[in-house]
Amino acid sequence: MIKLIVDTLGGDNSPRANVLGAVKALETDADLYVVFTGDENDISKIIEESGFSDKNRYEIVHAPEVITGEDKPTDAIRLKKESSMIKAIRILREDDSVAGMVSTGATGALVAAATLRIGRIRGVRRPAFCPILPTMAGGIVGICDSGANVDCTPAQLLEFAVMGSLYMKHAFGIENPRIGLLNVGTESEKGDDLHKEAYKLMSAALGDSFVGNMEGRELLSGNYDLAVCDGFSGNVLVKTVEGTALQLLKKIKKDIYSKKLYMFGAMFLKQMFAEEKEFMNYQNYGGSVMLGTGKIIVKGHGSSDETAVSKCIEQALRMQKSDLNAKIAERLAELAGTDTENNTDNGGPENV
Amino acid sequence: MIKLIVDTLGGDNSPRANVLGAVKALETDADLYVVFTGDENDISKIIEESGFSDKNRYEIVHAPEVITGEDKPTDAIRLKKESSMIKAIRILREDDSVAGMVSTGATGALVAAATLRIGRIRGVRRPAFCPILPTMAGGIVGICDSGANVDCTPAQLLEFAVMGSLYMKHAFGIENPRIGLLNVGTESEKGDDLHKEAYKLMSAALGDSFVGNMEGRELLSGNYDLAVCDGFSGNVLVKTVEGTALQLLKKIKKDIYSKKLYMFGAMFLKQMFAEEKEFMNYQNYGGSVMLGTGKIIVKGHGSSDETAVSKCIEQALRMQKSDLNAKIAERLAELAGTDTENNTDNGGPENV
Repeated sequence: MIKLIVDTLGGDNSPRANVLGAVKALETDADLYVVFTGDENDISKIIEESGFSDKNRYEIVHAPEVITGEDKPTDAIRLKKESSMIKAIRILREDDSVAGMVSTGATGALVAAATLRIGRIRGVRRPAFCPILPTMAGGIVGICDSGANVDCTPAQLLEFAVMGSLYMKHAFGIENPRIGLLNVGTESEKGDDLHKEAYKLMSAALGDSFVGNMEGRELLSGNYDLAVCDGFSGNVLVKTVEGTALQLLKKIKKDIYSKKLYMFGAMFLKQMFAEEKEFMNYQNYGGSVMLGTGKIIVKGHGSSDETAVSKCIEQALRMQKSDLNAKIAERLAELAGTDTENNTDNGGPENV
Repeated sequence: MIKLIVDTLGGDNSPRANVLGAVKALETDADLYVVFTGDENDISKIIEESGFSDKNRYEIVHAPEVITGEDKPTDAIRLKKESSMIKAIRILREDDSVAGMVSTGATGALVAAATLRIGRIRGVRRPAFCPILPTMAGGIVGICDSGANVDCTPAQLLEFAVMGSLYMKHAFGIENPRIGLLNVGTESEKGDDLHKEAYKLMSAALGDSFVGNMEGRELLSGNYDLAVCDGFSGNVLVKTVEGTALQLLKKIKKDIYSKKLYMFGAMFLKQMFAEEKEFMNYQNYGGSVMLGTGKIIVKGHGSSDETAVSKCIEQALRMQKSDLNAKIAERLAELAGTDTENNTDNGGPENV
């Protein structure tokens, strides 16, 4: 049995999408046990309506308070102890039988709470976010870090590479992930000191898996399975891809409506355009995983629907079943043999 | 009369596109005088073929050597003195009657040569690149810096804002450019120390023109006229927009060919798809201007065709006619009144 917490509040479609997504996952995977946090009444009612009746597969922890994007993360942790998210984090920390959590709530509060309250994997300096985007070649590409760390060291970038590639391998079955370092050009001497130094560390530690420097225009080409980034430019990368694709599809739609001839032709392409939109819909690829925390944390997009939430839960299940965190610790320990700095600054906070 | 140098070598379509682009500009603007650098024979022949015959409007400086992307910039400057680009830079430096230059050659060598050989505008710490992209609202947006400076200080970001907004105003007639600071979120406290500090400087110096922090997804929205970036994330931004748009259009094309029904419908949309591709073709919006150098430098894309080169020349003419560099110096001097640091580190190198 794998026990996961599902935070049911804080998303645009909460609590319904969160609860129904979890029910879907419960129906798909018999190993799953869900701990819901949120408004007990609401959750019970939605489960009842869904027709799911196996009360041995879930429990509900009443925590009706919501953290919003307006709450300052540190205040949220301190003042909203009864919120669905902070209560989930507390259970995650205190209950050894719980493997992880899925939330669609405020990112800032989740990062802060996870960083402060949940220990790190041994050998990890700082946890990082790793969302997934579809490539034009029909595959997927991970981006690590996409914004948890706006200031990075070269050694952290190497850690992102190790964590991200093990994640791509074990959660998505990509045997030898091809790793690129997001930079301003492909030549080895490109970039600022951070990226020049990271290039050297990655070349030495990752062997052939490290393809070299990668430009932003190559992200969706299908030539890379993982883009390693400092959190600042990784955030710019992910948001720019999303924005450009959505804006361009919107423009095409507008242009179609500008002429009757186009409207006629587009009738035959309706299905295709719907598929393109669906293709670029990051919800279909699951949530953004926080890598490096001692327990599994998957952050679904704020606008997640039922399917997106169930995908996030599936991701968490795959991570747990593959024992990803142990594999990350193992690989970092191997690398630490050649890098003594890597042995410092381990472990999590001592108390909640 | 405005005298501009046109470097005719180093682009994918050189020298033909460069020479014909210049001829086009000569025919359009009677004020223009062109100094061609490159292979004298080739240039003469292309001009002759074009039918342009006013020998008082141009001259040719024989400099047949080419700098390629493979040449290390500093080596290129030192060893390829007879190349069309380095000779152009020398004339630009030594001949007071020459206002600027247009090149489609290697970016690295051009930045290095311009930085080392051409003085800066008084008050400017470091020159920056400012390319232009189309917005989905039908306008354009400038991005400054897009990669000349991978390491920046907050004061430099403020300079980019001043130079970029005066450029958008005087070269494109945007009366009050709305300036955004590329960051990982819109709230004022977002980002690393560099961007937090830059936010404060820009708020204090730019008044209402400063809209605040901007996310990558908003670049093409039409809500901003100028995105101010450190050169690293600005480079990621520009390349990611280009890459995503091109990849998505390519995917749509591929998908159309996957079904007969789609192919039928797409026949009626042929014109529209051609327009979308043309819309995203950055060549249509001119080159990437180097702002902050004492003379005007416009870098056209390596794949520039005749039209793109003529657009680059038009840009240089507009910058010269509006006396942009003097306006930048003036505004920076005003700001220096409240920021003494701004008075140091001025002027260019002393000798070639």
